Amino acid sequence: MYSFEYKKRVRYGETDPMGYLYYGYYANYYEIGRVEMLRALGLTYKSLEADYRIMMPVVAMQVRYLRPARYDDLITICTTLRKLPTDYITFHVELFNEQAQLINSATVRLCFVDMDSGKRIGPPEVLLQRLRPFFEDIH
Amino acid sequence: MYSFEYKKRVRYGETDPMGYLYYGYYANYYEIGRVEMLRALGLTYKSLEADYRIMMPVVAMQVRYLRPARYDDLITICTTLRKLPTDYITFHVELFNEQAQLINSATVRLCFVDMDSGKRIGPPEVLLQRLRPFFEDIH
Amino acid sequence: MYSFEYKKRVRYGETDPMGYLYYGYYANYYEIGRVEMLRALGLTYKSLEADYRIMMPVVAMQVRYLRPARYDDLITICTTLRKLPTDYITFHVELFNEQAQLINSATVRLCFVDMDSGKRIGPPEVLLQRLRPFFEDIH
Amino acid sequence: MYSFEYKKRVRYGETDPMGYLYYGYYANYYEIGRVEMLRALGLTYKSLEADYRIMMPVVAMQVRYLRPARYDDLITICTTLRKLPTDYITFHVELFNEQAQLINSATVRLCFVDMDSGKRIGPPEVLLQRLRPFFEDIH
Repeated sequence: MYSFEYKKRVRYGETDPMGYLYYGYYANYYEIGRVEMLRALGLTYKSLEADYRIMMPVVAMQVRYLRPARYDDLITICTTLRKLPTDYITFHVELFNEQAQLINSATVRLCFVDMDSGKRIGPPEVLLQRLRPFFEDIH
Repeated sequence: MYSFEYKKRVRYGETDPMGYLYYGYYANYYEIGRVEMLRALGLTYKSLEADYRIMMPVVAMQVRYLRPARYDDLITICTTLRKLPTDYITFHVELFNEQAQLINSATVRLCFVDMDSGKRIGPPEVLLQRLRPFFEDIH
Repeated sequence: MYSFEYKKRVRYGETDPMGYLYYGYYANYYEIGRVEMLRALGLTYKSLEADYRIMMPVVAMQVRYLRPARYDDLITICTTLRKLPTDYITFHVELFNEQAQLINSATVRLCFVDMDSGKRIGPPEVLLQRLRPFFEDIH
Repeated sequence: MYSFEYKKRVRYGETDPMGYLYYGYYANYYEIGRVEMLRALGLTYKSLEADYRIMMPVVAMQVRYLRPARYDDLITICTTLRKLPTDYITFHVELFNEQAQLINSATVRLCFVDMDSGKRIGPPEVLLQRLRPFFEDIH
């Protein structure tokens, strides 16, 4: 298992007339969570596209909105990989407000696509080698 | 059952470097689908908030991304209510491209909140009376 | 001179806690106005990029916010070209609410870039030939 | 004169098919710049609205787009007040990329509105008292 935390503040342009973070904007928070997790592992998503010619489209997402996030709240994005990627990589995301209350939980599943052929591929070795240490059995 | 179709074009500001509709923007399409469905029934979401003091926060969403939507594609948003709202109202949304291919399917569940008390309430009569004709048994 | 009108409704995800269209979203309205103007002339921006390999980055924008646009307002986007494009093309945009009040006026200036060389170029003939009839002297 | 710097990374959902930060999203960067400037002064915009019942709508904006900002670039938002607010407050914003190149410059002018009366008012004392030390003559 590998978890990573990143903080982001709710901005005015992201909130709706209820004063809440608009429900469509949560996906941007999940994106930030997983991209910063990769960066912490020494790998940028930018480099995956530019250097390795691999893109990672989202294929499925499940979201539960538990409590509103409000304007100017500092949200903690907790992103977790529970297992090594196979044909898919699944990020489990939990968002917490400043009172440490769980406000939102989501599962985002992505696949790997070779940008030159347009075909689906397995998980790139450059990603696996950074993740394996966190998923090795300790015998 | 009640279904409603509405068309929306994919805009430049909604697309990402892959040239696809950004995965977070689909929620905006679902919003447009259900708001225009209500309008076709003679009820605006604006009036629900302003006149009836009822807001409808989203509590859960499930999305499957099947094919990309591309810049300038004219997307058909097909929004369906399969049953009358109870404590929740669940919209089933399917998006089709100009080749009539299903590109995305989603389920969006909302609840009803009294804006003055902040408490959850059942479905408002003003909504039920517009929906009942579509869900009556035909004996 | 060539003018074109297009209508767009203010969506929930576009509004802020004041209940107004967020000031950053107006640029999306200007984009819709000029893209639909081109389409009315028989030319899509998509085709400019895909077929002619020309992109049009924005180089300057001036905006005056005169009255708020509110959630669910149906906004008329009035886009005007006052002269034929030279090295730049300048769109004058005025937004009106349903009471025909001017709520916003903007000037958006774009240039033309060859996508293969990355270099600035003059206005493409495919655009000029569609615009010239509207700018010819009537002697 | 008072200047404040804040860094923000360009996100996937903010970029367009050119791979550039979409021109409409710059306004969000300016918002972040001025809100964080206020926070550094010990004043939150949230508190201005919630506690002082003052909102600050944008009345005018001028933008020059000099160089593209690209996906994953870490942008420095440099926000400057050149004089004390009067009926308006004018923020001068400059954005720099990681090579310290100026990529964008903007002027954003806002006014002050009493949220209860809906009327324009002068600059609130709570803001002026935090700004005056930076604008005092040094004799």
